[in-house]
Amino acid sequence: MEKPLIFITNDDGFQAKGLEALIEVAMEFGRIVVVAPEVAQSGMSHAITISSPLYLRKVKDEPGLEVYACSGTPVDCVKMAFDSIMQERPVLALSGINHGSNSAVSVIYSGTMGAASECSFYNIPAIGFSLLNPGDDADFTVAKEYASRIIDKVLNTDDITIPMCLNVNIPDLPKEDIKGVRLCRQNKGYWREEFERRTEPRGREYYWLTGIFLNQEETATDTDEHALNNGYVSIVPMQVDMTDYNQLDQMHGWEF
Amino acid sequence: MEKPLIFITNDDGFQAKGLEALIEVAMEFGRIVVVAPEVAQSGMSHAITISSPLYLRKVKDEPGLEVYACSGTPVDCVKMAFDSIMQERPVLALSGINHGSNSAVSVIYSGTMGAASECSFYNIPAIGFSLLNPGDDADFTVAKEYASRIIDKVLNTDDITIPMCLNVNIPDLPKEDIKGVRLCRQNKGYWREEFERRTEPRGREYYWLTGIFLNQEETATDTDEHALNNGYVSIVPMQVDMTDYNQLDQMHGWEF
Repeated sequence: MEKPLIFITNDDGFQAKGLEALIEVAMEFGRIVVVAPEVAQSGMSHAITISSPLYLRKVKDEPGLEVYACSGTPVDCVKMAFDSIMQERPVLALSGINHGSNSAVSVIYSGTMGAASECSFYNIPAIGFSLLNPGDDADFTVAKEYASRIIDKVLNTDDITIPMCLNVNIPDLPKEDIKGVRLCRQNKGYWREEFERRTEPRGREYYWLTGIFLNQEETATDTDEHALNNGYVSIVPMQVDMTDYNQLDQMHGWEF
Repeated sequence: MEKPLIFITNDDGFQAKGLEALIEVAMEFGRIVVVAPEVAQSGMSHAITISSPLYLRKVKDEPGLEVYACSGTPVDCVKMAFDSIMQERPVLALSGINHGSNSAVSVIYSGTMGAASECSFYNIPAIGFSLLNPGDDADFTVAKEYASRIIDKVLNTDDITIPMCLNVNIPDLPKEDIKGVRLCRQNKGYWREEFERRTEPRGREYYWLTGIFLNQEETATDTDEHALNNGYVSIVPMQVDMTDYNQLDQMHGWEF
């Protein structure tokens, strides 16, 4: 029997080490189609390319593994894959493994999770993986093991409601220091920036964005931040209904 | 007494007609600081600029109105405004008026609403406005009137819970055909793409993204899509906890 098709993308670009790690894991479970950005697209959120055209090239074609590089954003990659490239519906979509955390409110800035949630719109389970190490040369050995376990679980359970999108973050710890896997909710909090102002050799000023996370619920024990800070792999199921239902209730009766 | 400070941004760029319309409305209520993108940034979602520096220039400085153009995304503009430019805390943040709809799931692709929700992280009320006309020369006369009414309401009610972020969409209709304002939830549905493939004069292929909205709840009457299709201005309060609490319940007991 032919192995099932699995789709993979990321936001660090088609040459990233984390993508390579995820491909290795996923090839245990199926045939792979990758559509990933030409260049790193960290922080691209759910962005799409409207005002310029997209370019696509096939960079690898081996038995069980096709890799395409796309000039657009991570979400563009997903759209091209599902609406143009793949003639067969995959059973699972994966994004990552991201070089760096996507816990708490970072999920809304994340290209990795923007792409994962876009995949879930095609009514297959989608999982985004992130390792809490932003380095280009991060060690994905432990992350791969947890990715494999979670993929195995999702592929082999009947207990799934579609759409499903899981945001998985993995501590950057030795295997023996990881305490397990926790299902969590998204931690509340925001990023504040300290813009670093510099001057070009020719005199023009420019700024680098450098953020600090303000945790708004330090004491909560059911959040992804808490799990990660205590040595657990965190899994937050996510969805895209942004409606603030509490506010909607409170505004009931407003007149304009 | 000095008029209160209001912050404005958008995703169509600092020279857009919709921004000009929103500035005119907001100047009735306060002093204005604008930080808007140098160039159009439609579809930029909640993207931030991590891998390149940001540039900023003041393009207007009049009594009651300062305008800055920023090289980054709409969310970068918000972060620069709040964390670097403004020495005083504004009472209200506005985004738009966008040239084109941001109803239903479009909210997650929208630079206008990415910026509005980022503003709400600074614990002031934030409102994003969109007119259902994507044209550069759209007529904002009617949109301005509704924007004015909604701003007036938000500034003059005590019945607000912070954070608040309102996604306001305005039909592109003559004033007499607009039936009123409705509080709604976000309509469920997805965009599917029909990539238009073209060939460069030199032979290289490229693609344009052209989407179609698939409404997953045609018969619902409490959604923004329904309101807009029936001639109402829609207001959806939004928030950024993406946790899928139903899925979280269902996954309870999963082991890895």
